[in-house]
Amino acid sequence: MTEKIRETGERVTIRTVAEDAGVSTAAVSKVLRNAYGVSDTLRSKVLTSIEKLGYRPSTAARGMRGKTYSIGLLLTEMENAFLPKVVRGAKEVFGAANYQVMIGVGEAQASIEQSLIDSMMDMRMDGVLLVAPRLTGTVLAGYAAKTPLVVIGHHEPSAETFDTVNSDDVAGAREAVCALIASGYRDIHMTSLSQRRFDMPAGEGEVFTMRETGYLAAMQEAGLSDRARIWRLREREGCEGPPLTDLLKVGPRPEAVFCWSDIHALELINLAWSRGVRVPEDLAIVGYDDTPAAGMPIVGLSSVNQQGADLGRQAARAMLSRIEGRTTPEHILLEPALKTRRSSGS
Amino acid sequence: MTEKIRETGERVTIRTVAEDAGVSTAAVSKVLRNAYGVSDTLRSKVLTSIEKLGYRPSTAARGMRGKTYSIGLLLTEMENAFLPKVVRGAKEVFGAANYQVMIGVGEAQASIEQSLIDSMMDMRMDGVLLVAPRLTGTVLAGYAAKTPLVVIGHHEPSAETFDTVNSDDVAGAREAVCALIASGYRDIHMTSLSQRRFDMPAGEGEVFTMRETGYLAAMQEAGLSDRARIWRLREREGCEGPPLTDLLKVGPRPEAVFCWSDIHALELINLAWSRGVRVPEDLAIVGYDDTPAAGMPIVGLSSVNQQGADLGRQAARAMLSRIEGRTTPEHILLEPALKTRRSSGS
Repeated sequence: MTEKIRETGERVTIRTVAEDAGVSTAAVSKVLRNAYGVSDTLRSKVLTSIEKLGYRPSTAARGMRGKTYSIGLLLTEMENAFLPKVVRGAKEVFGAANYQVMIGVGEAQASIEQSLIDSMMDMRMDGVLLVAPRLTGTVLAGYAAKTPLVVIGHHEPSAETFDTVNSDDVAGAREAVCALIASGYRDIHMTSLSQRRFDMPAGEGEVFTMRETGYLAAMQEAGLSDRARIWRLREREGCEGPPLTDLLKVGPRPEAVFCWSDIHALELINLAWSRGVRVPEDLAIVGYDDTPAAGMPIVGLSSVNQQGADLGRQAARAMLSRIEGRTTPEHILLEPALKTRRSSGS
Repeated sequence: MTEKIRETGERVTIRTVAEDAGVSTAAVSKVLRNAYGVSDTLRSKVLTSIEKLGYRPSTAARGMRGKTYSIGLLLTEMENAFLPKVVRGAKEVFGAANYQVMIGVGEAQASIEQSLIDSMMDMRMDGVLLVAPRLTGTVLAGYAAKTPLVVIGHHEPSAETFDTVNSDDVAGAREAVCALIASGYRDIHMTSLSQRRFDMPAGEGEVFTMRETGYLAAMQEAGLSDRARIWRLREREGCEGPPLTDLLKVGPRPEAVFCWSDIHALELINLAWSRGVRVPEDLAIVGYDDTPAAGMPIVGLSSVNQQGADLGRQAARAMLSRIEGRTTPEHILLEPALKTRRSSGS
């Protein structure tokens, strides 16, 4: 039977698989999308037939229920060494459910991001997962009306039509600054970004604003508010805003710096090294994201780990349940943890 | 006129743009795909109308000539810090021609790569650009029969149905090893990968085999063939093959090591640091790819720069001309250049 079908050149469809396995096409579909409640026996039957027949669920065939089994994933950039962890976690969950992931890179520009999301919808992807988009809640809600939408790195717990998955950036920053205070540092500054991209109510916003909140809270609790200072700098070479070198050259140097991201912290630890400023003796540094470079023994940068892979996994799970029909919003907050290394002097 | 169209809610199409600009739809299409021979006047007219009308070339509208103005880009992984440069270069050229890039991550597994390429074709992307795929030339030729195909990081100058864009890996490796020899090193080993993924004729193959060729040639030219040794190690934690630590613990240590990639070189320079092996006094190291971590002052790793952005740009240009109808193959080889830092003792 199998051979006959293939010899005649007939297309192997979900129907052929169902016939061969002796089950309904709905059952095959369930196995394909890894739906809840599929028995091991059913899965095994269907997978055996799929393998035997050489069946490949094409976009068209998969489209049965209007599905393409593909997810659009929008990243801000490729260079941020934190993002691969998020992608890996998301792909793990999507892959197990037979979804493919197509990644667009928005280059931190709202217009490029929108054009990529439009394309993902044009391609009939089943949902769009955004990481740290530059888009306002209003724009996001507009897309959420048209496609299942989940956003990582955008704090908006009041959003009703899409899900958010975040690390608790206030708690992470607070933990980092408390650790510096516990080590005896008092003059602790923070680096953040120069562009506040859009105004949002308290408790909502982009990750760096939440980290500023955590920094200020920790300083205040320790009675150090008058020593607090936030340097609003450009993200990296080529971005807008004053450079990180300003922090080292203006006035007396702080004893310690909490950086909103490893992008700043790695630049700072290298600047210090190049200028003979000893870390942590002359300057303690804590970063954020626990990127691979921070963990290199030569570098030894303390950094807050926000569990990128978990962010990706949780976001992917939220997306799958949204695709399955959930409409009540989920706003997930994960607990970060400071990874202590030499640079923070403890 | 413009306002009227928008008020009535009529869709702004390529035809509307053509009417508004007073040109043919073919001319608008030419401007949209940045075709050769478009005058500045025509481009300016059309772009003005596009902006005025708020026209967004949708997949459907763009599909006029069967085009979606999207390119599938397949990467092996997200973690390799060299790849963002390639993506940036490719996106620069594709973006200027109004093409969008959708990235799939193949996780260095042929089956995942094939499934992603299948999806890209199902989504009617206009071409597929592969970076260091795990697929054989035969499989690549199979895809090339169905879609414009350009491959980076796969040496197969005899391929007739697809283009290849590579850095000259033999020359890059040779330059790195010659520099070590010029600095007085004699016992120079190399690290490479343990898996030879498939057999290919001389002069063809994966980048690491070409770098082995360059290493061996430099050693032979200096009369050091008997001191040459290639360590075939796993790519990184989690991959197959013996770990890099083998190199430091078995027998007398070499004076210098040329690593096929910064992935190995960064691991080695950190291992040396952790064990009190001075670099370059006790062990000189040269890597490959000139990744951001290699360039950090604290790290100071010499590394061969293979101009990732140029590889991406050239590949994107090749893709555009293939989409425009070129069928004769192009096999482009770029010149790499060693970036010398502290780790190689010069």
